[in-house]
Amino acid sequence: MLANELQHKIDFKTKPLGALGVLEPLAHKIGMVQQTAFPKLLNPHMVVFAADHGIAAAGVSAYPQEVTYQMVMNFLGGGAAINVFCRQNDIEIKIVDAGVNFDFPEGLDLIDKKVRKSSRNILEEPAMTVEEYQQALENGRSVVAEIVKTGCNIIGFGEMGIGNTSASSLMMSKLFDWPMASCAGRGTGLNDEQLQNKINILSAALDQYPDITGADEIAQTFGGLEIAQMMGAMEEAFRRNMLIMVDGFIATAAIATVWKKNPDILKNCIFCHVSDENAHQQLLELLGQKALLNFSLRLGEGTGCALAYPVIQSAVNFLNDMSSFEDAHVSNKE
Amino acid sequence: MLANELQHKIDFKTKPLGALGVLEPLAHKIGMVQQTAFPKLLNPHMVVFAADHGIAAAGVSAYPQEVTYQMVMNFLGGGAAINVFCRQNDIEIKIVDAGVNFDFPEGLDLIDKKVRKSSRNILEEPAMTVEEYQQALENGRSVVAEIVKTGCNIIGFGEMGIGNTSASSLMMSKLFDWPMASCAGRGTGLNDEQLQNKINILSAALDQYPDITGADEIAQTFGGLEIAQMMGAMEEAFRRNMLIMVDGFIATAAIATVWKKNPDILKNCIFCHVSDENAHQQLLELLGQKALLNFSLRLGEGTGCALAYPVIQSAVNFLNDMSSFEDAHVSNKE
Repeated sequence: MLANELQHKIDFKTKPLGALGVLEPLAHKIGMVQQTAFPKLLNPHMVVFAADHGIAAAGVSAYPQEVTYQMVMNFLGGGAAINVFCRQNDIEIKIVDAGVNFDFPEGLDLIDKKVRKSSRNILEEPAMTVEEYQQALENGRSVVAEIVKTGCNIIGFGEMGIGNTSASSLMMSKLFDWPMASCAGRGTGLNDEQLQNKINILSAALDQYPDITGADEIAQTFGGLEIAQMMGAMEEAFRRNMLIMVDGFIATAAIATVWKKNPDILKNCIFCHVSDENAHQQLLELLGQKALLNFSLRLGEGTGCALAYPVIQSAVNFLNDMSSFEDAHVSNKE
Repeated sequence: MLANELQHKIDFKTKPLGALGVLEPLAHKIGMVQQTAFPKLLNPHMVVFAADHGIAAAGVSAYPQEVTYQMVMNFLGGGAAINVFCRQNDIEIKIVDAGVNFDFPEGLDLIDKKVRKSSRNILEEPAMTVEEYQQALENGRSVVAEIVKTGCNIIGFGEMGIGNTSASSLMMSKLFDWPMASCAGRGTGLNDEQLQNKINILSAALDQYPDITGADEIAQTFGGLEIAQMMGAMEEAFRRNMLIMVDGFIATAAIATVWKKNPDILKNCIFCHVSDENAHQQLLELLGQKALLNFSLRLGEGTGCALAYPVIQSAVNFLNDMSSFEDAHVSNKE
């Protein structure tokens, strides 16, 4: 049985039992996903979905909405944190316009999956219509369907969207019936007063839709275009049996929503970073997951995945390349 | 002033203030050590010091003493965890015989700095004579003095030596007057009974030398040849203004002992991994340091450094390669 074979291989490497800590279950997981005791990471990709949020107009973020498109241009120019870390670790990066409130010029290396310019303002109406939401899921799936053709078997998802921690907090609160105060955080840098204001706004938004139930309806009502595309992309990555690197709070909110529909998806997920957002630790606990890194990042973009990638590679490498006690003629525990 | 210049450079990268978490003070620290806002990591090296311990005869480890030399052979063959991770991350590895209880054949790629075969059994006499201890410090210094000639400016230190968590626990207990039960851990895998036995043996050893004081005398009495060489190597790395990657419990015990003599050394240190050994967290707190990674490793060899190296590189890369708000025409916080 492969599970036993993998565990035996791990246990008889030249190290005490369990001495490589979290790398050991990680190597086991990767072997199980790829159904081999000799796994490989091929053509790693990072997809950054960008979109705007109607609720940004309510002042839930410390930054103006124009930062979304400006950061997309920065991604395309190679100057953002995620570009730097992907370059360093040989991760191919793809930027997707899932619904940015801006007309980008032609000829950019931008994947155009825009459903509409910005999601709707949930203080007035659902973030997406059912059709828009379905389209967003489908667009996300199609991005991964293209990438898998390159032979890629490990993929991470990042996001950019002023207001998207608010959308994620709303989804969480509704999905798991958690009080808004435990789901809303400082995002990219709110002070105490701004945070309280955000909680009040989000609570008001929540109260407007008392009858919403089910993961899809919640995501459609409270989510965002980049979040929905990420959900579709995660579903497709699972369907293609890829390893899925899960980034910070927003990506975890997306995977938690997908998990409500398909709990098996966790088999393929590697949780890369636990952020300081209130709800993130809570979400990981609910999912029974521990993240690899704890760097107090609060940037999104997929930066946690890109930084964790070398560690994931290390897990694969020790499994493939370390000697066993027998090979190396080292005495095992007495 | 460079400190301000670095902080300004970090703060005006295209990200919210502080959003790169622990990578930001890390980049600042590296800039300060290298006295530039454009730091570089050059020719990274990992030095693994190996030696045996007289106290191993008392049964303080789960493994027999012969594992020390067998693992040295494994290092030289490229099959140990530290080899795998150094290869992955382009870190040059050097293996030093600081005092292994074995006659190695000629012609190996092993740096011969053997002071004697194994430290003495501290249940009977100090681990090293004063002369042996001074020789070990000097040998460690000489290893780094050679490496710095390659242009290397960042170096990590690993160790291999059956019994060396015991030596480290004794040093800690004596240096900081901590009870032995809080300094001794499971090493590479003791069970409850074996751990209690280890604590009893180490307490007995401690009681034999009531009048020992001072970092050097403590290291000479309770330490080991690889620990003393690592201490000398750390001193030399600091004198040459290199960045020092500090691995797990034993390396932290070594740096804490050096710190007693020269508190400034912490300016150059990057703490890479916090292990599950009881005393390690306690030591880091005393030194006012947080480690980058928390992977539940308990292997030594420098594995925590090798796994943390890409993160250190990421800190340097974001500082050098990310766009500023101004360069990228991104709006800053309102």
